[in-house]
This record gives sequence, C-alpha cells and structure tokens, in this order.
Amino acid sequence: MSFDRDAGGRRIARRGGGGLVTALSGLLAHHDVTWIASAITDEDRLVAVERGSEPIEEQTREGSSYRLRLLAHDPLAFDRFYNGVANGAFWFLQHYLWGLAEEPVVGPDFRVGWSDGYTPVNRNFADAVVEELGREPGSAVCFHDYHLYLAPAFVRERRPDARLTHFIHIPWAQPDYWHALPGDIRRAVHEGLCANDVVGFHTERWRRNFVQSCEAITECRTETAVYPIAIDAGEFEALRESAAVLEEERKIAETRPELLVVRVDRTDPSKNIVRGFRAFGLLLERHPELHRRVGMLALLDPSRQDVPVYAAYRAAIERAAAEVNEQFGDGTWRPVDLHVADNFPQSVASYKQFDVLFVNPIFDGMNLVAKEAPLVNERGGVVVLSENAGAHEQLGAWTLTVNPFDIEGQADALYEGLTMAPAERKRRNAAISAFVREHDIEAWTDAQLADLDRLTSTILS
Amino acid sequence: MSFDRDAGGRRIARRGGGGLVTALSGLLAHHDVTWIASAITDEDRLVAVERGSEPIEEQTREGSSYRLRLLAHDPLAFDRFYNGVANGAFWFLQHYLWGLAEEPVVGPDFRVGWSDGYTPVNRNFADAVVEELGREPGSAVCFHDYHLYLAPAFVRERRPDARLTHFIHIPWAQPDYWHALPGDIRRAVHEGLCANDVVGFHTERWRRNFVQSCEAITECRTETAVYPIAIDAGEFEALRESAAVLEEERKIAETRPELLVVRVDRTDPSKNIVRGFRAFGLLLERHPELHRRVGMLALLDPSRQDVPVYAAYRAAIERAAAEVNEQFGDGTWRPVDLHVADNFPQSVASYKQFDVLFVNPIFDGMNLVAKEAPLVNERGGVVVLSENAGAHEQLGAWTLTVNPFDIEGQADALYEGLTMAPAERKRRNAAISAFVREHDIEAWTDAQLADLDRLTSTILS
Repeated sequence: MSFDRDAGGRRIARRGGGGLVTALSGLLAHHDVTWIASAITDEDRLVAVERGSEPIEEQTREGSSYRLRLLAHDPLAFDRFYNGVANGAFWFLQHYLWGLAEEPVVGPDFRVGWSDGYTPVNRNFADAVVEELGREPGSAVCFHDYHLYLAPAFVRERRPDARLTHFIHIPWAQPDYWHALPGDIRRAVHEGLCANDVVGFHTERWRRNFVQSCEAITECRTETAVYPIAIDAGEFEALRESAAVLEEERKIAETRPELLVVRVDRTDPSKNIVRGFRAFGLLLERHPELHRRVGMLALLDPSRQDVPVYAAYRAAIERAAAEVNEQFGDGTWRPVDLHVADNFPQSVASYKQFDVLFVNPIFDGMNLVAKEAPLVNERGGVVVLSENAGAHEQLGAWTLTVNPFDIEGQADALYEGLTMAPAERKRRNAAISAFVREHDIEAWTDAQLADLDRLTSTILS
Repeated sequence: MSFDRDAGGRRIARRGGGGLVTALSGLLAHHDVTWIASAITDEDRLVAVERGSEPIEEQTREGSSYRLRLLAHDPLAFDRFYNGVANGAFWFLQHYLWGLAEEPVVGPDFRVGWSDGYTPVNRNFADAVVEELGREPGSAVCFHDYHLYLAPAFVRERRPDARLTHFIHIPWAQPDYWHALPGDIRRAVHEGLCANDVVGFHTERWRRNFVQSCEAITECRTETAVYPIAIDAGEFEALRESAAVLEEERKIAETRPELLVVRVDRTDPSKNIVRGFRAFGLLLERHPELHRRVGMLALLDPSRQDVPVYAAYRAAIERAAAEVNEQFGDGTWRPVDLHVADNFPQSVASYKQFDVLFVNPIFDGMNLVAKEAPLVNERGGVVVLSENAGAHEQLGAWTLTVNPFDIEGQADALYEGLTMAPAERKRRNAAISAFVREHDIEAWTDAQLADLDRLTSTILS
C-alpha cells in the first residue's frame, strides 16, 4: 500500500503485489488489523506527517477494513536500512549469493548502515508497536521478514508480556554462512528473532537451519514452526477470465510455437535466469528435432535496477538470451522471447499457456509462481522445479526436480517435460492444482495465530 | 615427492612442502609405509612406467625408509581430476568461495571431468591399494583429502574387510552449500567417504558439518573423529638457526620498521589477502601516530597461476597493496612490503620477527602458519586469527579473534596487538608455543591408527 498523486494532483492509493501482500490478504479478511509500514513515496511521507500516530482507515480490494499506519523514517536512515542492510546484506546472505572472496566487506560504511540505518528504523517500528499495544493491549503482533530482525527484542524490552510472532519469507542460511557477518551483528539478528514467541518459515529445511544457527550463534532459543505460504486460489481463478488476461492470452496464443516453456520471475540473481537460458540452449543443441517447434517465453519484472549488481545481472540476462537466439534462431524463428517489464496480466496469461513451467532458483524461500501457474494452466503443463525452492518441499512429488547449478540436468528435465505422455502431464498438473486449492491463505494465517494463542496462553497460565 | 632431471640429465628427487608432507612425516618415522601418489612431472611418469607396480625404496630427510608407488594416469584424465574437479570444484565448494549466481555451471564439461577424470583417477588409486593389500593383507589404508572421495568405496567393493581411514585437510561445508553440485555427485562424495572405517577432520566444527551433510544427503553413515594436525616442532626449532634463515632474518632486521605485521600465505582467494590490506589501510587511516613506525610484510607463495581465478586474485592482491602504499606511503616509507615468491627461509625468518602475525582466512581447514610462526617468534608476537580458521578451535584463547569479512574489526585487532602490554603479549605467545610443542605430529598419526585398530578389531570380534 502506497500513496501518490495523480495527474490532477489528487492523492491516490496504490495497492502492491508480492508475497507480503498475499500474506496480508489472509489476515485482513477476518481479523481486526493495524498494518504498520514504512512510508516509501514522498506522498506517503506527507500522509505519515499529517496523521502522526493516527492510523488511516483503509479497505482491501475485497472490501475488508483495516488501519494503516505509515512510519516516516529519516530518509538517509531508511536508505541504509532498506538498500544497505536488508536488501544489500541479508538478502544476499540468506540466498547464499555472495562470492565470499570479494563480498561482503564489513567496513565503516556497513557499520554506519547498521547503527544509523537498520537499528533506528527497527526502533521506529518497535515504538509504533508499543504505542499500538497501548491502545489495544493483548493484540497479536505479526512481524514480517528480514527487515525487522531487531524490532521484536525492542518491543519485548518494554512489553515483556507482548504476544509476538515473526514470519521469514526467504531461506534461512546455515550457521557457517552467517559467519559472513561479524559476531555482534549475527548475534543481534538471532537474539532479536528469539524475542518472538514463535518464528515461522515456509519449509522444514529453513526452520531446521534457523534452529541450528541459533544453537551455533547465540544462547537464545524460541519456538519455531513451518507455515508454507498459500495463494488465494479464488483470486487467480477469477483473474484467469479477466479481460486484461484474456487480451494478453490472445497475443500469446497468436504467436506461440507448438511447445511453450514459460518462466516468470523478478530479475534477481537468486532466480538463476542466466543458467536457465543456457540450459534451454543445451536442449536445442541436443534436440534439433525441437527447433522451430519449441520456444521459451521469459517474463521478467525488472528489480532493484538502481543497485549495480542488479543492473549487471539484467545485462547478463539479456546477453544470455541473445546468445541462444543468435546460435539457434534465424529470421523467422526466435527461440527465446524475453520481456523485461512489469505486466501481471501477461504473466497470468502465460500461466494458462505453458507446456513446461521453468522454476530453477538458486535458493528461494517458497516461490509462488510454482503454485499460481499450474492452478490456472489449461494444457496439462509440467513444472520443472529447483530442489532449492521452498515450494519443492510441498510439490516435489509432482514436478520434475532439477539442481539449479546443473544446466545439463535442466536441459534433460525440459526435454522430459516437453515429451511427457499427456495422461501423466495431466495427472501431475491436477495434483498440484488440487493441493494449491486445498491449502488456502486464510488457513495459513489462522495457523500462525492459533499457535501464538496456544503458546502465549501456556506462558500466562 | 617428485622426480626431475638436473642440468646434467641425471634423475633427481625433490621433496615437497605443505600440509600433506607434514602429515606424512609423522607416519613415516615409525611405521612401515607404502605411499601411493600421482605422477606429476614427466620424469615421474617415466619412473612410474619403468617401475610398473613395483614401489621405489625412498628415504625421508630424517632417514626413515618408505616405499613410493607412483601412478601414471592418463594426462587428460589427470588434468580433469586435479584442476577441473578437485581444485576447480571441491576446493571452492568446501571453502564457500563460489559466487553462486555465476558459479558453478555444471554442464557437459563438468560431467566429462567427473566421469572421465575424477572417477577413473580414483579408480586407479583404488586398484593400486587393492594390489598393495594383496601384498600386505591387513594393512591400514590412509586416504588423504578431497582428491580421493571415491577411492574408498572402490576399495571396499573389492575388499570388504579392508581397514580404511580418510583425513580431510580442508573445511567441510554444510549441506545447503553441497547443493551447489547435483544430487548424484554429492551423494557419491558422501557415500565414498562413508566406505571408510573412520573419517577425520581438523576440528569439531568440520566434523559436525560432515555428520550433518551425511544425514541430509545420503543414507550412509560412518565413524568420524577430530585430529587437529600438529607440526614438527623440532624441525622448526632447527630451521630457526639454519644459515639460510639467519641470512634472510638479517635482511628483514636491517629494513624492518619498529613494529612489524607479518602475513605468510599462498595467493589463494580463501586466504583473504585483499581484505587484509584494506584492514591495514584502515589502521593507518585511524592511527596517524603509527605512520612510519609500522609496516606489513606480506610473503605470498604464488599459487595455481595457470588458473584464471587465481591469476585475477594475484592481480587484485597487487592492486590492493599498491593502493595502501599510494595512499599512505612516500619516497622513504612503504607501508606494505609485498613479496610474491616461494621462499621458505624468508618465511621462517619473518616468523621470528613479527610483532603481529595476521592470519585472516575466509575459511581454512587448519592453517599451519598460526602454529609454526609463534613457535619460533622471538618478540612476544601477537596472533590475529580468523574465527573461520581451524586453528582457532585450539589457539583462540590466546589470539585476537577476527571475523574475516570485517575489515574494521581487523584494523582494531591489529591496533590492539601492536599496542598490547609486553607481559600480556609474552604470556599469550608462550602459551601458544607450549601448546604447539606438546601436541606433536607423531601423536597425530598414532591417534588415527589407534582409532582404526579399535574400530576394525571391534567389527571383527
């Protein structure tokens, strides 16, 4: 949720996308919620200043009411918090993306980012939570993700009886890799999280890693649980028939080859897009009989393009796609159809049209595309899925499993998916769809709140 | 041990250095040993062909006899084994050195390296072991390091009652990071090692990682143990007074500043030399009072310079040293004195002369410099030691601990070491020396053989 001005200078609210919004949609439907969030746009900051600590009454697309409280941090502190520490360090660490010979360099700049960015912004959140708990004592407090590792401890100091739960949307790295940050910082992260009554993860693998890194790094312990995030199946089943999606689908259907491999991702190094194109090139090298019959549609949402590593990764993506097209394509056939744009209706349209969905992240907390796309697919499409995507823990029995570093294995899996017998394709696709429909987003929220109720009432009794 | 021709065309034997030779010296002194090794030089290959399966009778510097059996592998297979898989993959994986967004790429080349390099060379070793066991049934077989992960299983297949122990000289990575290789390869590594009766590591940390990765990756289990490698204290105490060392020491003593920081390493990315220079630069930036009083002597043995990553790392080392000298030095003062050369007497001389020894590896199985240098030091020198060096598990109580990514923390530790009270410096230095003298290399070997005897006799009883 963010505010902006329209061309006429009127304030308008924009609703965002992504995992956090999915997570919230389950919560907002049936609970009385105050959402505390950072002011991002200039207009957000104006709203935050106008309102002070008074939340704004808002409504979801589905009509549920909630209160939104925007925090206007110091802009430099926010940049250090968001770009420097959260996305610049924790994102890379927790996806094992650093080349440790060169990165990270923890010097004076990083220390300032920690002391004058990540820490005060977390303290702002904690202050707001404490204030809200003054208004609504006993409320459950739900922290989300790698931006707020310190806030729970700051709240706990001042409200020992607060009821705190934290959900981590990304992988948890094993303790050796946490040693890429100095002892005081890695301890503060684990101690901050252990101030929660319970910490939740998408998979047993990430949960176990967290328990292990707590043991290796700090004396603190807390309850942990696995809550694999779900999607709002009804939303995608409605979207499937929306005018915007049908229009995008018409365009894809007009130009698609007989066999279509689809990938939908942000242009993030963790998504492994370059190796994906190399694997597709290897498929074409080994299977000339597929030339002109198969194509890869890559729909990539440009991500963090003001960060040099991300700009370089986008350039590498474009080079890798061009290499495949130069090696195998000609005037009438372009094997890789690359779109770097934010076009959600086009993504949903591609979900309907794939024969093989290619999801090969290096590491990924869950990966929602692997759940969304099979649900709306209409061709009995096969999912090729990385063993390092959280979704693999739930869906692996019905997907073709690949190692994300193994481009030969990925080429083989693409081939297997493209040539699989129709009955087997349909069986697997139906199994994933049924699973995704059965596990809905409201159950995901309710499980977390039920655990928090159980754990905090035990402590109080 | 390797063979060459001298200027007159006569065959000469050269004795090597490093951890493996240290390891062998304990074994050769009191045991009847056949050493099976790869032929490396052209002359080695001639020797191997001349002798066939007949070992050569050799003697150590100390006069102990042993038999050397050289294996002449197919040269292309050996290159794939040694440079491709062992040093190109396992070294990087087990030191967490890959930037996973780009490396590794497991494609057809890697697969050929595995099937036509690593596997057949391991099979050659296993064949030779089986043949030697035919001559000397019941012998203990001691495998060493990351080159021979498959050989134990190949031996076990054919000699179910063989007595096999394996020592790993480098770190063991945690299971998530082993997922940088495809499932069949990571399983073969763990299954190969589990064919041993016991697998040994330098530290409890690496041992625990191995147990954990066995659990995550394969059904196999085996006994594990911790044998922190020792050094031959007598050898270094003799070297200290050798003519070559005294001559090098004279040169250092003539030119050294009042306070000398020393580092001695191979030019390997795992050694963290670039961050080390940046930390030293930060020390100079923060402490102008040390200008002209302190210098860093960096003695670096050039390593694997035919490998592009290593050549690039050496260039980065030279740039980083030049940057510090340009920023802080002048016509008469050069803060960093960098020598890229293989000069062992100079290294030992620097061990005697340091005020602070700087050992900051990213990850390191043990690091013998941290044991050798304090033993011969004559100035009550302080050791600044990475928490990720295996030596830290034994020596950490007497060193200044640093995180290898934290250049600010390293600058602070260098300062603390340089300004530490003399009595405290001497106390710590004496404690390390005493520890190193007490734990000798023969005890290291004997512990492994005793465990193997105990484990295999238990099984037989």
